[in-house]
Amino acid sequence: MIKIAIVGTGNVSHHLNKAISKANGLTVVQIINSRSYIQENTTDLPDIYIIAVSDNAINSVAKQLKNTKSLVVHTSGSISMHALPERVRRGVFYPLQTFSKQSEIDFKMVPLCLEVEKQDDLFLLKKLASALSNSVYDTSSEQRKSIHLAAVFVNNFTNHLYQIGNEICAENRVPFEILKPLIIETAKKIESLAPIEAQTGPAKRNDTKTVERHLNQLKNSNLKEIYTLLTKSIQNTYGKKL
Amino acid sequence: MIKIAIVGTGNVSHHLNKAISKANGLTVVQIINSRSYIQENTTDLPDIYIIAVSDNAINSVAKQLKNTKSLVVHTSGSISMHALPERVRRGVFYPLQTFSKQSEIDFKMVPLCLEVEKQDDLFLLKKLASALSNSVYDTSSEQRKSIHLAAVFVNNFTNHLYQIGNEICAENRVPFEILKPLIIETAKKIESLAPIEAQTGPAKRNDTKTVERHLNQLKNSNLKEIYTLLTKSIQNTYGKKL
Repeated sequence: MIKIAIVGTGNVSHHLNKAISKANGLTVVQIINSRSYIQENTTDLPDIYIIAVSDNAINSVAKQLKNTKSLVVHTSGSISMHALPERVRRGVFYPLQTFSKQSEIDFKMVPLCLEVEKQDDLFLLKKLASALSNSVYDTSSEQRKSIHLAAVFVNNFTNHLYQIGNEICAENRVPFEILKPLIIETAKKIESLAPIEAQTGPAKRNDTKTVERHLNQLKNSNLKEIYTLLTKSIQNTYGKKL
Repeated sequence: MIKIAIVGTGNVSHHLNKAISKANGLTVVQIINSRSYIQENTTDLPDIYIIAVSDNAINSVAKQLKNTKSLVVHTSGSISMHALPERVRRGVFYPLQTFSKQSEIDFKMVPLCLEVEKQDDLFLLKKLASALSNSVYDTSSEQRKSIHLAAVFVNNFTNHLYQIGNEICAENRVPFEILKPLIIETAKKIESLAPIEAQTGPAKRNDTKTVERHLNQLKNSNLKEIYTLLTKSIQNTYGKKL
């Protein structure tokens, strides 16, 4: 049985706790509020501390664990393992997913990116990860940071494009609902097709008339700029010039 | 029984034909290659011609139908109804979805945007649409053009962001597979949450350190530019400045 202490009480902590509770061979022995002082549970010492707090808080929270014998991992995609205390057995356990308390997550499908300082600790961390998910990756720091950067494009920026779609609908008194089947299909399409194959639209087919009409429709200069830049980028990808 | 002739043999025609064949009260009496001459099927005259050809071809293809008594509609999101012959009963039947031959589409879920020149024709077009989909909208030309523009943001541009994610992964020898659960979840999240609520990430929380690190990671000036512009746009949406 792997004993786990989770530091933090946000979305990642919430989903992690739920997934650990359901998994075989894992148990949560402590959930620690990141604002309170971390007192080691000496009667039921955790094998692993999972620091699931915001990026900025990792360093100060983890400092309190500088004398622990347990493995200490954080869950951030972009923070160095070295933000954890120096003399501790340290590592990273980065679940690549967007968590919110409102939506259920099938943790078995969440890719987990693992990193350890000492190779000896990889066995334990992998055992934990494999009990939780079918999708476990050993990643270097560089790879993890790249994955986090790629995630910003496909999640944060994509959601912002949804937001822009929503704005355009609202301005024209069209319910945003109308775009939802397209949004889902766009995401599902790349399960069987590489994005470069799935690309469609006026930019891809060099349809300058439609591009021009769209730019005339857009009143907001910020949206014009985004439209122009992404259109140019698609054109360049396919070797055409506007 | 509504008799339908489909002009064009591309993706829209393919999925439309499949959906019509399955629907009650509809039948396809002709499928016409847009490159061949349109000969009216006088023994089994269609009630509706659906011109499912590329935007640029609509005008020249539809010209051949200038004497028909049938309703003539095109399927484009961005082309005016007036691209169809003047003296004909004309309209628009715009299915808001991305179609490719490889992936199955549940046509019942495809939003259909309808437009007719003469209100008398709305009944017939609506009857056709309702037999095919649970999601039928009367839209003005302006609304349809806005929907098409919004679709470019949430489909074409989003797919391009997936492509960028793919590139970043490839450069760092990470399988693109790793991003797919996140991509699907990002799309699914907005079924229950407005995009403005679903937004996360360094731009939203004004985490300038992470933004700076990401910009340093990006070597490609085009990607730097896209990252900067979308980050700025998210910041502005949430009233913060970098």
